[in-house]
Amino acid sequence: MNGAACLYETLLRNRVNLCLMNPGTSELEFVTALDRVPAMRAVLCLFEGVCAGAADGYARMASRPAAALFHMGPGLANALGYLHNTRKAHSPVVAIAGQHTAWHVAYESPLKSDIGAFARTVSGWVEEIRSADTIGAAASAAVRAAQEPPGQISTLIVPADVSWSEAGELGPFVAPPERRAPASEKIREAARILRSGEPAALFLSGSALVGRGLEAAGRLAASTGVRVLTGRFFSRMERGSNRFAPERVPYFPEAAEPVVAGLRHMIVVEAAPPVSFFGYRGRRSLVAPEDCALYELASVDQDGPAALDALAAECGATQSPRILRRPPQLPSGTRLTPLEIGQTVAALLPEGAIVCDEAVSSGEPISACLDEAAPHDFLAVTGGAIGHGLPLALGAALACPDRKVVALEGDGSGMYTLQALWTMARERLDVVAVILANRRYRILGIELARNGAAGPLASGMIDLGRPDLDWVKLAEGMGVAATRAGTASEFAIQFQAAMREPGPRLIEAILQA
Amino acid sequence: MNGAACLYETLLRNRVNLCLMNPGTSELEFVTALDRVPAMRAVLCLFEGVCAGAADGYARMASRPAAALFHMGPGLANALGYLHNTRKAHSPVVAIAGQHTAWHVAYESPLKSDIGAFARTVSGWVEEIRSADTIGAAASAAVRAAQEPPGQISTLIVPADVSWSEAGELGPFVAPPERRAPASEKIREAARILRSGEPAALFLSGSALVGRGLEAAGRLAASTGVRVLTGRFFSRMERGSNRFAPERVPYFPEAAEPVVAGLRHMIVVEAAPPVSFFGYRGRRSLVAPEDCALYELASVDQDGPAALDALAAECGATQSPRILRRPPQLPSGTRLTPLEIGQTVAALLPEGAIVCDEAVSSGEPISACLDEAAPHDFLAVTGGAIGHGLPLALGAALACPDRKVVALEGDGSGMYTLQALWTMARERLDVVAVILANRRYRILGIELARNGAAGPLASGMIDLGRPDLDWVKLAEGMGVAATRAGTASEFAIQFQAAMREPGPRLIEAILQA
Repeated sequence: MNGAACLYETLLRNRVNLCLMNPGTSELEFVTALDRVPAMRAVLCLFEGVCAGAADGYARMASRPAAALFHMGPGLANALGYLHNTRKAHSPVVAIAGQHTAWHVAYESPLKSDIGAFARTVSGWVEEIRSADTIGAAASAAVRAAQEPPGQISTLIVPADVSWSEAGELGPFVAPPERRAPASEKIREAARILRSGEPAALFLSGSALVGRGLEAAGRLAASTGVRVLTGRFFSRMERGSNRFAPERVPYFPEAAEPVVAGLRHMIVVEAAPPVSFFGYRGRRSLVAPEDCALYELASVDQDGPAALDALAAECGATQSPRILRRPPQLPSGTRLTPLEIGQTVAALLPEGAIVCDEAVSSGEPISACLDEAAPHDFLAVTGGAIGHGLPLALGAALACPDRKVVALEGDGSGMYTLQALWTMARERLDVVAVILANRRYRILGIELARNGAAGPLASGMIDLGRPDLDWVKLAEGMGVAATRAGTASEFAIQFQAAMREPGPRLIEAILQA
Repeated sequence: MNGAACLYETLLRNRVNLCLMNPGTSELEFVTALDRVPAMRAVLCLFEGVCAGAADGYARMASRPAAALFHMGPGLANALGYLHNTRKAHSPVVAIAGQHTAWHVAYESPLKSDIGAFARTVSGWVEEIRSADTIGAAASAAVRAAQEPPGQISTLIVPADVSWSEAGELGPFVAPPERRAPASEKIREAARILRSGEPAALFLSGSALVGRGLEAAGRLAASTGVRVLTGRFFSRMERGSNRFAPERVPYFPEAAEPVVAGLRHMIVVEAAPPVSFFGYRGRRSLVAPEDCALYELASVDQDGPAALDALAAECGATQSPRILRRPPQLPSGTRLTPLEIGQTVAALLPEGAIVCDEAVSSGEPISACLDEAAPHDFLAVTGGAIGHGLPLALGAALACPDRKVVALEGDGSGMYTLQALWTMARERLDVVAVILANRRYRILGIELARNGAAGPLASGMIDLGRPDLDWVKLAEGMGVAATRAGTASEFAIQFQAAMREPGPRLIEAILQA
């Protein structure tokens, strides 16, 4: 067995059975090994950023890493923007970058670069393998490192001659390290804060936004009156009509400040103290008011749900709140804005769907509607590298082939990684991409307006018209069926059809200003 | 004047008057400043890799840097693959990356990253500006550093509050540092080698492939019998029917070895000793035979043309060779392979055109025809980060608006950065993109075949069918008129029309196996 096959077999032994790839000559053994190790599912992407974002989406839904294979330094470089987002999501990923043969790397060839330097910008763990004897052990270590709480990117750099040489033993199965519960004093101190009667909020992120973490937060809110907050840039939240819904802190500080005004305590769970997305003139970065004390109940690598459960028990919060929300009416008529998109998606989303949100400036009004949708998973972009949404949806669909995936994607943001559509078509994935076409970088338009009037040259830089993008043609050009909606009625008909039929499918929603 | 305007004005004073950009909120002042500094031409790209590749193409043709503006770490990260190629081309570029405000950078916000670490992977010079007082001086230093021979990327990291604060003085004009001629002993030693009568070759790259460098090499070949070689991965070569044409060393070592067999001396000019693209089993990396002595006449940062001129004088090589090549016949019929593409382009290319080559596996047969085309500039991909061709053509067209630009692009390679087409449409650039559609990663297919039979799973990873890409729709989706050619006759008609009419235009050439 050669090094490439040994790496695959060791990954399989560690439950890593998907490899998103964009290989080159130096990774050729990883291509030929697929026929000898067919249990490793290989999925080809036509741009490396798509591999990266898809590995993130997969990890968020499968709760285990995928591998992602890149062509040396430049291939890895093309993935770094979306690996940045993946790092911020704390998603476990095993990245593999090929390298020149040992005797070739000394020369100034076109592809020569410092692969380790590229890797370290986003990886928590990097190893360049020197010999096929050790590739199995290194692969096990990489999977373990990726799953070190809260999850991170581990990168293996594999020279071509290592991949084709006779390998040593397979690496062992290594049990994923578990999140630790916080110390009991932390629970007691948080309980003391809640009992103080002073205005307090929990701020949840990470794994606290799913399952028993969210349920415990709901019980705490119902019993103690504590407010429960979250941000917009979490990895995964379980949402929908029967689920407890934390309040979402708005994006802009002037909108966030009234929401948190008066709070004397903010207890963070699997989160750093929340800050605004950018620093603004005359505004504080921290979301919490100046006289609000911050308390960390669980750090990002600890077990937030266990902490919330223990806190609920400590506070005697045993009663779950009654949650009864109904899906909104399906809108109709000619008006089509993010509100009608949100109402339509909320009305028609099937139970168990996965919503991937990169709606950017259209996101808040759409997201507000989704608390009333059928129960679903909601994945947000965590790192601000624009273009993550379509790859994220691709990865979620690979992890959950039986669930409908809906990508809410800006027209500007979708353009960074539109190649994801081709892989959706090739793998026949059940993804519906909704392109929110306002034909500008609207978030920048909002920021420009906050700063005062913008001149024509500035306005030109945020205008995506001249020429308009035609997302129907772009999708069809990659084998994805597509339609265009210019009214709420058209969007409802097209989205309803897309919910009934298997995907992939794209709807370009032309938004009105 | 604020920091952003001061940076622009200092760049203008240093003849940098183009900024390729994909801005975000932290770079907003660079957007609003455009209306106050309208001499700075801003060109919007929908993906950062396009900015990077275009900056490379611009620098190669304008012989001075463009600026390229990116949104913090993730925006810069998205550009790194193509900045790698730019670095390998030794193209001067002034990269600008935004950064959080001084008070915001301490917090763990979504966009926070080590921007300097991203920048240093490809930049020869990096400075994070701490105060608007010094932004002018830093901008001058960045332009100077970018133009330090042989040319490199310099990166300025500009916090948002620096960009909006009142700036200090404009930075000075700094004369670009000039390439030095090599010492006269080098010339005499090279002349001694040529006079020895032992088989010798010059290997040219960098600025030695244009103008008087190439002419001097032609005189040396005609007078002394020295062979003149180059590789495939140079920045820019002047080519065509009336120009001296160096022999091109083939890509694969088994093809290169007979070409260089018997050489006892290889004299490199603005080049590292040439090596194969990859290391292969049982093959040496160095192109030169084992018993061939390597001699550096001019290092990559020295003045190769001056060295060649001096060597020609030293050898008494005053007579230019007679070069008389005629364009090939325009092919017709149903067969359409890279050969017919090359013959058609060679027959119809107008004088002064710029050809950007990322034809990958189709490249050698096409390129071989172009020695017979009208005089033109030929730009190759230098770093092996696939997807550079369309952005390169975009940048060349921005530098030379009066010249026809032809991009020869693989269908696989074009997909990495297809967003370049939108900017070509918006800026109404005279670019004709020829997509060489073999519907697979054919270069990998060739490598697989070299290794023996490939199984069906391996073959699937290099197959770009299932579904086929439709480049006509992809182009039209971004506002570029497009046609498809399936025969030599169709291609000739479409290419002829494209040479007559202003672009942009795309021709998808469906190649036969």
